[in-house]
Amino acid sequence: MKRFGQVIGIKPEHVEEYTRLHADVWPGVLAKIHECNMRNYSIFRYHDMLFAYFEYIGDDYEGDMAKIAADETTQAWWAVCGPMQNPVEDRAEGEWWKTIEQVFHTD
Amino acid sequence: MKRFGQVIGIKPEHVEEYTRLHADVWPGVLAKIHECNMRNYSIFRYHDMLFAYFEYIGDDYEGDMAKIAADETTQAWWAVCGPMQNPVEDRAEGEWWKTIEQVFHTD
Repeated sequence: MKRFGQVIGIKPEHVEEYTRLHADVWPGVLAKIHECNMRNYSIFRYHDMLFAYFEYIGDDYEGDMAKIAADETTQAWWAVCGPMQNPVEDRAEGEWWKTIEQVFHTD
Repeated sequence: MKRFGQVIGIKPEHVEEYTRLHADVWPGVLAKIHECNMRNYSIFRYHDMLFAYFEYIGDDYEGDMAKIAADETTQAWWAVCGPMQNPVEDRAEGEWWKTIEQVFHTD
């Protein structure tokens, strides 16, 4: 299992709507996340920054992420949520959320 | 169980040392964290911000946090790490790391 931390910006005028949407994410989006081996996935907010934490239990992260990106329901969900977000400038090519460095872990 | 997200600043000149220290945290610090019901605790860094994620499995969060704060080894650890950090201005009274809002979770 590999732990991921990620960041993305959130536009201040969309915080309320984004929070409301994420209290009740579409079942198809959640099912695809699970099918693609993401577990224990949380998103937190601090002002205009979102911080995600999840655990990846598969053995083909890029393949699974591509599978999520190819899913029609997920694409429709992203069409709703994407415009509310501000991806950080220094994200890697192909990233939307930027994966950040883990500096500590204890069980 | 309750999930926590937290943020704190890190002084750019101390990033390297902070990262090195957190690759090998003192056993007494880790033991106290565990004793006080914190689990699956990770810290990530994005530039000059640290994001923490952990799961609290006890039933007296404030009491457990007070127990950690009263621990001599932890106090010595904080004396080393604290000056490397920049707590955010809008943290709650008594906080060092600021607890932030959770907006999403899926298992």
